[in-house]
Amino acid sequence: MKRSDRLIGLTNYFINHPQELMQLSYFTERYDASKSSISEDLDIIHDMFVHEGIGSLERISGAAGGAQYIPFFSKEQSVEKMKQLCYKLEDPSRVLPGGYVYMSDLLGDPRIVQEIAKVFVTAFHEQSIDAVVTVETKGISLAYAVANLLHVPVVIIRRNMRVTEGSSVSINYVSGRSQRIQTMVLPKRNLKEGMNVCIIDDFMKVGGTVTGMISLLEEFKAKVVGVGVFAEAEDDENERMVDEYISLVKVSNMNVKNKQIDVTLGSFYQ
Amino acid sequence: MKRSDRLIGLTNYFINHPQELMQLSYFTERYDASKSSISEDLDIIHDMFVHEGIGSLERISGAAGGAQYIPFFSKEQSVEKMKQLCYKLEDPSRVLPGGYVYMSDLLGDPRIVQEIAKVFVTAFHEQSIDAVVTVETKGISLAYAVANLLHVPVVIIRRNMRVTEGSSVSINYVSGRSQRIQTMVLPKRNLKEGMNVCIIDDFMKVGGTVTGMISLLEEFKAKVVGVGVFAEAEDDENERMVDEYISLVKVSNMNVKNKQIDVTLGSFYQ
Repeated sequence: MKRSDRLIGLTNYFINHPQELMQLSYFTERYDASKSSISEDLDIIHDMFVHEGIGSLERISGAAGGAQYIPFFSKEQSVEKMKQLCYKLEDPSRVLPGGYVYMSDLLGDPRIVQEIAKVFVTAFHEQSIDAVVTVETKGISLAYAVANLLHVPVVIIRRNMRVTEGSSVSINYVSGRSQRIQTMVLPKRNLKEGMNVCIIDDFMKVGGTVTGMISLLEEFKAKVVGVGVFAEAEDDENERMVDEYISLVKVSNMNVKNKQIDVTLGSFYQ
Repeated sequence: MKRSDRLIGLTNYFINHPQELMQLSYFTERYDASKSSISEDLDIIHDMFVHEGIGSLERISGAAGGAQYIPFFSKEQSVEKMKQLCYKLEDPSRVLPGGYVYMSDLLGDPRIVQEIAKVFVTAFHEQSIDAVVTVETKGISLAYAVANLLHVPVVIIRRNMRVTEGSSVSINYVSGRSQRIQTMVLPKRNLKEGMNVCIIDDFMKVGGTVTGMISLLEEFKAKVVGVGVFAEAEDDENERMVDEYISLVKVSNMNVKNKQIDVTLGSFYQ
């Protein structure tokens, strides 16, 4: 097989298997090529990945060695994309009663979800993360896309007890401003004890949901090493129950009556 | 830029933008290369994609022309992967009360979700699909992965009325064997009228949920062009409320008391 063909096959492999260490022998067999040829291929791919701003190929030498694609995306490149999302979100028809913003179309668009996920992966690249945790429903696509790039499982916290998955841990928590008591449930076998987890959610107002998730995760002796929300409502900033988190966009000056809303870049870009 | 570098950049682009027509001029500018060079690159990539069994690059000539990656995966290659999933699912500890099977670990693993999604995309490749529809919660990751490969939006039907997205259409439906009356809700702006949709779900017993989804989708004048469930329970086959669907694995002879379960390849492989 020619080098040009191998480069295409290898690029496809690594893009589809981020954060997964692969021994060189797998590729020498698959493409019937010498170790030195594959090694040169990987150098070319690494340089081009860096040039394209999509990460790097990490090489680990020795008997158990191999190569691994580490996704890492340029923060500068994401600014323009997030600004476009801010612009889309400022559409007055998105203002919903109760201080919510209609975002289901954006979070239902796989390309947009992928762009948002890339930013979170870049933001948390220094953390060691064993699992991505979210709460149903709207953040699930996002959490899945992040987990895919990190090569870790997604764990979904449920909102009601109608869960058919054996024994579960549940907590009651007080939702932010409305002070309503709500429930969250996580089946025991869905998350091993003592994991490093990253919380991903679509929208944060006062932060009651994230606070609830953190309490529930304590029951699993999990260490929350990062909290990432796509959008935060700045108007609720003074009542915020969560201290450490990053947001990608910030919603402010929302006026439900006049259908007015401002959307700017979030805390990750400050 | 050398051809080898361009091939890496182009492969990355197409793998991340399935089903998206891109004009050649975008690439000639991006890689500062002539149209004929890029055109040769695309021929090489097409041949290698076919060789790797991951689809093809479709070329459209003329002023509005360009190239588009059409994902299509070998059915034979998926057999081995689905058989591995069957083997994992036969673990007796997965048998849950009520005739359910514990699958959250598999559906929370992004690589497995990706493999399952590839099979659905291959199964439905002759259909024209405008959106992928699922119902919360466990099928969402799967629906998102399918939608990503098809380059269409995901639409998530909710199970309760606590939806903060403006006016909604809701229906009551009778869940399969338990004959319980349940609710499904879809905000009006989440799905335009008259779309061709494909339904994706994780598990089907009698099929009450899918029947409910089809009824709700009728209110949106949607045409259901495909129904794909990852697992179906064969023991409920005689009471099945849905006729046309494909399943990838089939669960049978489940005995909750003795923790016994058989899992074999589903209808797509018959």
